[in-house]
Amino acid sequence: MSTTRSEPAGPVPGVQPDAGLLSPVRVGTEVEAAVGDTAWLQAMLDAEAALARAQARCGTVPAAAAAAITAAARAEYFDVRELALAARRTANPVVALVAALTRRVGTEAPQAAEYVHRGSTSQDVFDTGAMLVAARALRPIVADLRATAASLTELAAAHRDTAMAGRTLALHAVPTTFGLKAAGWRQLVLEAAARLQRIADEGLPVSLGGAAGTLAGYLQYAGQAAGGAGRGPHEVVDDLVEAFAAETGLARPVLPWHALRTPVTDLGAALAYTAGALGKMAADVQVLARTEIGEVAEPAGAGRGVSSAMPHKRNPVLATLMRSAAVQVPALSCVLAQCLPAEDERSAGLWHAEWQPLRECLRLTGGAAHAAAELAAGLSVHPRRMRDNLDATGGQIVSERLSAYLAPRLGRAAAGEVLSRASEQARRSGRGLGDVLAALPGLQGVLSREELAELLDPGRYTGAAGPLVDRALRG
Amino acid sequence: MSTTRSEPAGPVPGVQPDAGLLSPVRVGTEVEAAVGDTAWLQAMLDAEAALARAQARCGTVPAAAAAAITAAARAEYFDVRELALAARRTANPVVALVAALTRRVGTEAPQAAEYVHRGSTSQDVFDTGAMLVAARALRPIVADLRATAASLTELAAAHRDTAMAGRTLALHAVPTTFGLKAAGWRQLVLEAAARLQRIADEGLPVSLGGAAGTLAGYLQYAGQAAGGAGRGPHEVVDDLVEAFAAETGLARPVLPWHALRTPVTDLGAALAYTAGALGKMAADVQVLARTEIGEVAEPAGAGRGVSSAMPHKRNPVLATLMRSAAVQVPALSCVLAQCLPAEDERSAGLWHAEWQPLRECLRLTGGAAHAAAELAAGLSVHPRRMRDNLDATGGQIVSERLSAYLAPRLGRAAAGEVLSRASEQARRSGRGLGDVLAALPGLQGVLSREELAELLDPGRYTGAAGPLVDRALRG
Amino acid sequence: MSTTRSEPAGPVPGVQPDAGLLSPVRVGTEVEAAVGDTAWLQAMLDAEAALARAQARCGTVPAAAAAAITAAARAEYFDVRELALAARRTANPVVALVAALTRRVGTEAPQAAEYVHRGSTSQDVFDTGAMLVAARALRPIVADLRATAASLTELAAAHRDTAMAGRTLALHAVPTTFGLKAAGWRQLVLEAAARLQRIADEGLPVSLGGAAGTLAGYLQYAGQAAGGAGRGPHEVVDDLVEAFAAETGLARPVLPWHALRTPVTDLGAALAYTAGALGKMAADVQVLARTEIGEVAEPAGAGRGVSSAMPHKRNPVLATLMRSAAVQVPALSCVLAQCLPAEDERSAGLWHAEWQPLRECLRLTGGAAHAAAELAAGLSVHPRRMRDNLDATGGQIVSERLSAYLAPRLGRAAAGEVLSRASEQARRSGRGLGDVLAALPGLQGVLSREELAELLDPGRYTGAAGPLVDRALRG
Amino acid sequence: MSTTRSEPAGPVPGVQPDAGLLSPVRVGTEVEAAVGDTAWLQAMLDAEAALARAQARCGTVPAAAAAAITAAARAEYFDVRELALAARRTANPVVALVAALTRRVGTEAPQAAEYVHRGSTSQDVFDTGAMLVAARALRPIVADLRATAASLTELAAAHRDTAMAGRTLALHAVPTTFGLKAAGWRQLVLEAAARLQRIADEGLPVSLGGAAGTLAGYLQYAGQAAGGAGRGPHEVVDDLVEAFAAETGLARPVLPWHALRTPVTDLGAALAYTAGALGKMAADVQVLARTEIGEVAEPAGAGRGVSSAMPHKRNPVLATLMRSAAVQVPALSCVLAQCLPAEDERSAGLWHAEWQPLRECLRLTGGAAHAAAELAAGLSVHPRRMRDNLDATGGQIVSERLSAYLAPRLGRAAAGEVLSRASEQARRSGRGLGDVLAALPGLQGVLSREELAELLDPGRYTGAAGPLVDRALRG
Repeated sequence: MSTTRSEPAGPVPGVQPDAGLLSPVRVGTEVEAAVGDTAWLQAMLDAEAALARAQARCGTVPAAAAAAITAAARAEYFDVRELALAARRTANPVVALVAALTRRVGTEAPQAAEYVHRGSTSQDVFDTGAMLVAARALRPIVADLRATAASLTELAAAHRDTAMAGRTLALHAVPTTFGLKAAGWRQLVLEAAARLQRIADEGLPVSLGGAAGTLAGYLQYAGQAAGGAGRGPHEVVDDLVEAFAAETGLARPVLPWHALRTPVTDLGAALAYTAGALGKMAADVQVLARTEIGEVAEPAGAGRGVSSAMPHKRNPVLATLMRSAAVQVPALSCVLAQCLPAEDERSAGLWHAEWQPLRECLRLTGGAAHAAAELAAGLSVHPRRMRDNLDATGGQIVSERLSAYLAPRLGRAAAGEVLSRASEQARRSGRGLGDVLAALPGLQGVLSREELAELLDPGRYTGAAGPLVDRALRG
Repeated sequence: MSTTRSEPAGPVPGVQPDAGLLSPVRVGTEVEAAVGDTAWLQAMLDAEAALARAQARCGTVPAAAAAAITAAARAEYFDVRELALAARRTANPVVALVAALTRRVGTEAPQAAEYVHRGSTSQDVFDTGAMLVAARALRPIVADLRATAASLTELAAAHRDTAMAGRTLALHAVPTTFGLKAAGWRQLVLEAAARLQRIADEGLPVSLGGAAGTLAGYLQYAGQAAGGAGRGPHEVVDDLVEAFAAETGLARPVLPWHALRTPVTDLGAALAYTAGALGKMAADVQVLARTEIGEVAEPAGAGRGVSSAMPHKRNPVLATLMRSAAVQVPALSCVLAQCLPAEDERSAGLWHAEWQPLRECLRLTGGAAHAAAELAAGLSVHPRRMRDNLDATGGQIVSERLSAYLAPRLGRAAAGEVLSRASEQARRSGRGLGDVLAALPGLQGVLSREELAELLDPGRYTGAAGPLVDRALRG
Repeated sequence: MSTTRSEPAGPVPGVQPDAGLLSPVRVGTEVEAAVGDTAWLQAMLDAEAALARAQARCGTVPAAAAAAITAAARAEYFDVRELALAARRTANPVVALVAALTRRVGTEAPQAAEYVHRGSTSQDVFDTGAMLVAARALRPIVADLRATAASLTELAAAHRDTAMAGRTLALHAVPTTFGLKAAGWRQLVLEAAARLQRIADEGLPVSLGGAAGTLAGYLQYAGQAAGGAGRGPHEVVDDLVEAFAAETGLARPVLPWHALRTPVTDLGAALAYTAGALGKMAADVQVLARTEIGEVAEPAGAGRGVSSAMPHKRNPVLATLMRSAAVQVPALSCVLAQCLPAEDERSAGLWHAEWQPLRECLRLTGGAAHAAAELAAGLSVHPRRMRDNLDATGGQIVSERLSAYLAPRLGRAAAGEVLSRASEQARRSGRGLGDVLAALPGLQGVLSREELAELLDPGRYTGAAGPLVDRALRG
Repeated sequence: MSTTRSEPAGPVPGVQPDAGLLSPVRVGTEVEAAVGDTAWLQAMLDAEAALARAQARCGTVPAAAAAAITAAARAEYFDVRELALAARRTANPVVALVAALTRRVGTEAPQAAEYVHRGSTSQDVFDTGAMLVAARALRPIVADLRATAASLTELAAAHRDTAMAGRTLALHAVPTTFGLKAAGWRQLVLEAAARLQRIADEGLPVSLGGAAGTLAGYLQYAGQAAGGAGRGPHEVVDDLVEAFAAETGLARPVLPWHALRTPVTDLGAALAYTAGALGKMAADVQVLARTEIGEVAEPAGAGRGVSSAMPHKRNPVLATLMRSAAVQVPALSCVLAQCLPAEDERSAGLWHAEWQPLRECLRLTGGAAHAAAELAAGLSVHPRRMRDNLDATGGQIVSERLSAYLAPRLGRAAAGEVLSRASEQARRSGRGLGDVLAALPGLQGVLSREELAELLDPGRYTGAAGPLVDRALRG
């Protein structure tokens, strides 16, 4: 096997790469590129190079060797498919990568080859690479979430008082406003962004433990090196972790985390939250875009939402993509939580089970965030249709208000019963609730026509929707 | 149906309650009692009472009525099974609870009955109750986690330098110390406690939205009440939410969260993390307790670990219980994340799907934390057995060290190859690695007998394990 | 501890049983009673009694002892809470149950006590009990599925030709019929029933393996007994398994399955399928019951669907309950599949993690099936509303038909483009698609008014819906 | 956009395909190639071609057109990445594929272009393609399972009587044989193969429903065609489905299944079972391969199991890969079950969420099956080490036997207590259980030295292990 080469790889015959055909939610997005195999390979190479430079900072590797390793650590010098194939023999791709990197370095700077991966272990390189990938993937995700929130701020403000039917258990409940709905979506999106940002800021540590988490290999080499002389293991290790964190831009962990998988579980949980939060927006858009409801429509665009059979259709594809992610990510995140109980100093399988689900969590969520940004920026809102729907039940949507109004006058139970019966009668007869009520002998004198008319206006029963929007947008 | 009564309920014939027979991990624990049906009922009653008192604070409900409602809001006055049965007609237990509470209040203070659940909706009461349950359940969980961490601090300190085999992919890798292992467990346990505490401090809000999240019903009643006159909806709502939060001791949400399910998802994620973190400790204990390994043993106790068939057994039951929780909680937490995309102002099913999984997450994790506290407090550690196991491979466990030592002398590739072959030879012949190496012609002059002896001592190759323990215990 | 007694247990102080308050989908159903703690306890006692009788058949236990054990094996003699509490010490409830049963037998028939649980192990009793519980729970589930299917047969036949909008990606697509929709639900329900029935018929085996799956304990006792003399282990074991299967009515496994968990995984998969299949019906009912769509309504009933705030509402609670199960069961079933990789001859945790999820799968699915039977029996269908909705888009719902009609005349691409533009124009102007098309100069002579009118009638474009219903109902 | 071309595609700049770097369990296997993007594209093209030929059989498409479509339907003519990118606009890759295929056909046979995808819908093509992919992927999976079973048959037969420690809850329980363990693995593997084969035989149907499952588009075109004249929709549809099934080699469904997702859920469940079953074998191998236990070893091979840090290691990588699949597949299969409740005639998101999880289930399970075949074929078994481990507890492993022997002599309770105490004493003192027992005054005369010696021989207490192996291997 030779996984080093000077030229970029051509297509390997017989390879069947995934180019995103089955995952439209993320295809072509920035996050997809940030987590692909080449990006992951580059991140592992970055980890190797950063390790060499960190050791150079600590005086245990010659600076020239670190520079040579850094120069060689470019993904285009390696054949990702060959590395992948080799990984089946060792259960991880680092063993072959180290061999290939060593060969590459050896070609250019023979004396530097000895310093590749010095004192290290596959998991240090893989996990540090994974954290670099995550850091790079979180940037566009958070950016898309912020863009989404900005558009939703505008929508919420513009529609602060646009009345629409509030719906519970699939039925009209009482009126609400589209502004409050948009403010709710925004709240979730901002909370998702805040969680991911917190992880990006503090939750992505370098992995530096050596073969079993004691850093013994690093210390052994350091002790043998000139620079390591006369210092205690405490200081050597402190300096090395510090330097590695500085070189990678990642955080410093309290302990080596080969078998303490907090960073991965945390990422999974925050991404599941994000995908679910975007799924809420998607679920609402799908309801409101239904043919019979028609209160919102997805942004149009060249070829967007086209059907292969029905020329009249403009499918709500962005919400569809977002929902497809919201269904998948929680289960993938569940795999990551199932991997927390990793036995020993490195699990025989639970570590390996994390890799693909972590990547999927990142790119599905990132794709959904990208779709959300497009959706929020271009959503059409139809206030007239909202008003028509509010009126469609002939006043039943404000039965709660009538009930509250009549309760002190008739007693609460009686008021409820009157309205329950009147609503049923209105439903069966097709008459308006106001007409039914106006005709009830028991309400003569209790409720004037004018009071009834005002009470029945759905637009006057949006409660604190406006102030709630204000409060949320201030937050 | 009558769900009010003056006497505590006797057993309802034909009822088949779950008394914990299938869930030994949580049976009899404090958290089990805190989340059971009676506790949940009490919490919903507490929510109703707090709501009345909050409205009284705001001047929209008479103080006497609030007092009467509070007096009636005791779980023992109601029949939990009857309420549960009634819930099948309305898909939640609050509708029947409100009716029963109204009847109970009406018996004692007829004029107060009108004020029960005024302006409210089932979800406000259920969700506020759920947050109260969570708050009460998190206390014993966090306490058990802290007790576990305290015991692990002692274990880590006591065994800071107790050498044992580090194991990766099921095999001996390089030495580590038991102190470092215990410090790792402690780290996870402390992080779990911190997450749950953060949720207890900030993440459990009251639910106050009314029928569709606009608080319109509350405002309607407030507007009609003397105390509500002349104030804007903004102020009325602010005061009411503030007062409700004060009366319950829960947090104030930014927006009503009937369909913005962050608090529930967050609880699920933190509990999945906690169960998984405890599962790591359990997985390690199970490995180390194996008959052939024998490095730790669970605390003995009257009848603990007894088998129905084999008199010699003392099963590691605490670790077994912890692991059983670690397998279940992530999937239950996944359900909670699947419920985030709740459509509309209240989902027809996703809300309802949260209840039982949330309770299970709480009590399984709480039970596991309780088991962990017992396990950590009583774990037997056998340093001699650790030492025997370290020696069992005749030096192979320090092959990394020898490799690092020989690399500068022979070249890294050659060093690796020599050791790889020598290890294989040692394995086949049953000889010690030192003997094999000493006999190799190629190492004559490179490695003296004395150097070899020192290099081969596993106790001298624990790297930075000690300083890492120190660092972790300071944290 | 004393878990035997002569009197039925009173309520144990401080116990917080689950009476179903958080799980309305299953509360009060037959399946709930079939899987509760008391039912589970009885099933384990049935297993002990059947084992004694099976051994008596084989001549290794006196018939009188088997009779005494059978007489004592009644759940009401035992305190389920005390057994549950004891289970925390041994990680399963059988150890204490055997002790309590032995005491009970000893009181009535001292010489029989020696024969309780002879040669057996906790898992044989627990797992055989679990299979008995499953067998008893599957009966009402399958019965409810069959009742559901019968009602759906009627609905499908009655509405074979009731045209309604077919909807894809939330939008009107082309017409379909309600009969075809109901036939689809029925198909899923029948497939679910068939799967569960197959499991009930063949997939629920006795568990008989002894301490580690070799039946050595049974053989040891058999060899010592008079009846066992002179027979080979092959015959003894064959006879014993056969007799145990006969006494319990369960199937005979190929091998002891303490660590080969096929029966449990299979149950989980079939129940997840069933819950999901019912969830499909629920999802459709929820869409069709929406206020704006109004094509179906859930059966009314005393108090059913009542809201605590809004007197006009009749919530679709049955579909809500069904959906709540469909969200939970797959995740619980996933736990069961995660437990397949049980290490050793009995896993330290994966076995224990199955119990509660298996029960939840049974009762959630059973509750959903019961709700489905009610829903299918009483569903109101509103053909007029279906027709109104079909007409709501002014003919766009048959754009596919027009496209197919025009394709041979204009070329397919041109036809698609004409219709796509005409649909857009109709949408914006609010005019009917027919009017827009009739006015198009390019279509003069291609399409007469009469042809257009016929092509635009949604009721004439239901394709093979009718024959498909016929085909499905024959199946 | 142009997704047709005459030349195979070169690497698209900026594309980051997944070449398997993060998924060593399946990299390079036959099943990986069978489910990759190119294979999936080919399967969708096969569906389009088969549809045209089926329509030609029915006389509604000219045979020459069907031939031209078939000739054009080759994956190498299309750019999979461009199709994937286009799918983001329509939420599925078929819309762009139809356009590209139409262009390609149009270039070669202009008059045939009209017949591409005639009357069809994206989902018919995608789902039929998915079933073809599944059919092609199941072949190597089943073959690997059968090869695994064949190797396990040999192992079970060879080690029918090789005694080893049976282990429960991580501890020695009673003896078993390696033959029985291997027979158990084989049983699971065979059941997995049988389930997958049943699906391959009957469970993979064509998808043929048209825009909303009524086949109206197909009928419309058929009615307009000469061949369709004079036949009822029933016959036309029957013939078309039959012909499509014949052309693809897939099964005929009862109803169109756009929203009745049984085939996908079933695949998921059977693959989760398979992955879990293989995970059981992996879990056992990992335990038995532990350094301290050493009863089995994975097959060696060039570079297999090599560590990047520790020259002495030969990691059990095959079991590691298998376990990594067993953790992931159940969660992915859970996504598929979560997609069963697909609303309407085509779900806006639940359909799309199936694709990638289904592929992952296939290739992870297939990779695990391939690893299993290698593992079973080359597993080293060490009977001497098994014997040493059996003896390691000085007889405690047969305490059950002693208990059964003494029970009739001392009473069961007394026998259990004697042995429990003696075991404890043996454990503490390090003496053999036989020595402790021999010294007990209470056993003088009950148990001769000779009897004791025989009872204490673990090799004589393997129960029915041998006959059970015979029985299983006959099955």
